[in-house]
Amino acid sequence: MSTITLKSANFFKLLKYSNLSIPRRFNSGTALKLVYSEYGDPMKVIKQEPDHVQEPKNGEILLRMIAAPVNPADINTIQGKYPAKPKSLPAVPGNEGVAKVEKVGPGVKNISGGDHVVPLRNFLGTWRTHLIVMEDDVLKVPKDLGLVEAATLTVNPCTAYRMLRDFTTLKPGDTVIQNGANSACGQNVIQICRAWGIRTVNVVRNRPNIDELKKFLTDLGATQVLTEEEVRITELFKSGQLEKPKLALNCVGGKSALEIMRHLQNGSPMVTYGGMSREPVTVPTSALIFKDVQIRGFWMTRWSKEADSVDRIPMIQSL
Amino acid sequence: MSTITLKSANFFKLLKYSNLSIPRRFNSGTALKLVYSEYGDPMKVIKQEPDHVQEPKNGEILLRMIAAPVNPADINTIQGKYPAKPKSLPAVPGNEGVAKVEKVGPGVKNISGGDHVVPLRNFLGTWRTHLIVMEDDVLKVPKDLGLVEAATLTVNPCTAYRMLRDFTTLKPGDTVIQNGANSACGQNVIQICRAWGIRTVNVVRNRPNIDELKKFLTDLGATQVLTEEEVRITELFKSGQLEKPKLALNCVGGKSALEIMRHLQNGSPMVTYGGMSREPVTVPTSALIFKDVQIRGFWMTRWSKEADSVDRIPMIQSL
Repeated sequence: MSTITLKSANFFKLLKYSNLSIPRRFNSGTALKLVYSEYGDPMKVIKQEPDHVQEPKNGEILLRMIAAPVNPADINTIQGKYPAKPKSLPAVPGNEGVAKVEKVGPGVKNISGGDHVVPLRNFLGTWRTHLIVMEDDVLKVPKDLGLVEAATLTVNPCTAYRMLRDFTTLKPGDTVIQNGANSACGQNVIQICRAWGIRTVNVVRNRPNIDELKKFLTDLGATQVLTEEEVRITELFKSGQLEKPKLALNCVGGKSALEIMRHLQNGSPMVTYGGMSREPVTVPTSALIFKDVQIRGFWMTRWSKEADSVDRIPMIQSL
Repeated sequence: MSTITLKSANFFKLLKYSNLSIPRRFNSGTALKLVYSEYGDPMKVIKQEPDHVQEPKNGEILLRMIAAPVNPADINTIQGKYPAKPKSLPAVPGNEGVAKVEKVGPGVKNISGGDHVVPLRNFLGTWRTHLIVMEDDVLKVPKDLGLVEAATLTVNPCTAYRMLRDFTTLKPGDTVIQNGANSACGQNVIQICRAWGIRTVNVVRNRPNIDELKKFLTDLGATQVLTEEEVRITELFKSGQLEKPKLALNCVGGKSALEIMRHLQNGSPMVTYGGMSREPVTVPTSALIFKDVQIRGFWMTRWSKEADSVDRIPMIQSL
């Protein structure tokens, strides 16, 4: 029996300086959990504690977490800055991850020992080594799915999928424009669009290794990758090389949002799912009245709360 | 036979200093029209010319304009600043008005001499004494309808009606919040809501005679009238005196738009139909993501272009 390889302090130091979306592996062994009893700086309020795991009862499953990523939303939740909060404190952080089924309780039908599963509900608290859930709280995924892919399946790829599906009807050959295209979600947008035959115009901030980043995103399936400066002067749409986008996805705000909105076809939506620049979305009155742009927002947590697992399962399976 | 009572120069001077939505009467008599051959300042480019009116042919109707209002959009069209433009120049301005049927051509079925009609199409050019239209271009209205009401029926009241109908489903007891509530369209919103049992919170700029304006709008049917300063600190919704609004209507932009948006129920739309402050609409990222506010725009011209007269006739009749 071994303990968690990283001590909690190291663990969070690493998270703080990482891009916050790399899953960390837990080793199997003694049941341990990370908990917080008050909102605040994760480095200060998160403690590592031993956990008491019981035998799974009727309909329950005992899971061993294989990997649990840290999403910026997890950090904001711990800080108390996120609108969705755990029902009570102390709470175990973590909404995502992939787990192996250790043992199933009586009456569990569709899941067996050794299966790999991902959470279907928020606030299960995935930052622990072991946990007990109900059968319906999780979805079985193929064992050969990469750990990173599996552990992060239920937030970013689902956000990308829903934004591409729920605000307009896209058909092969249509164009989508997005900023923050190298974010985890932006990369998922590129991959899903490639699979669906949809063209993507991807806006990223300029940087010293911009050519590398452009190649990386192009290899992922991006039709075009432009810097914030390039999108301002691009002739891509005027020249007819690409049709004007029918959907814009914004996780930056401010000027960047305005630039991607400007290229939209009349009557098209821009969907905001993040605000990395910390600037609001500014919309010219004329774009609303005369171009009929539709400014919307998307929050996976709300969608999950409102949706049935009936809606969720085919989405996760298709991803 | 008399000529137009106001000379064109006086006519436009008056428009310039009026609130631009007061209909001017044309007297019957010699056919005359106002025309512009180039875009520019209406005071300079508009000329009065004699018009040659022929007998109405098959399906045609000869109209004599009784009243034709001046909408700010008419002025912007003449200036060349409006996105909708006449097919060619020279053109006769004016999209609204009420006319008396002078003579019907062969094959006209549902309209007879002496009927009062309003235009169903844009760019008929209502700023003239007489015009020939097709039967389907106009809709019969009751003769006892006031001239001002009839002449302005097809733009502002229709804008109010569509904004209240097309963006959310309102039922009696629901609340709508709007700024610029004393505009022509804002007044129509108040009246239609009163008729439908919908509550209105009406925001206006402070002014010396604010009590008079509040009384005027309250008499019209407003549930509440608040100044821009009052709406910022109102406890109306927190106290439970009124339910949070399910729809916001914005014709101002800037801070005023932000204030009315702030009070919306989660998942509700704000519809922009004007930008009197000349400031854009600024939307906090959190309102889009976590409150799911939906920022939309409405332009009657687009609606009219896309709609059938089938949609239009019941609306105008109900108004």
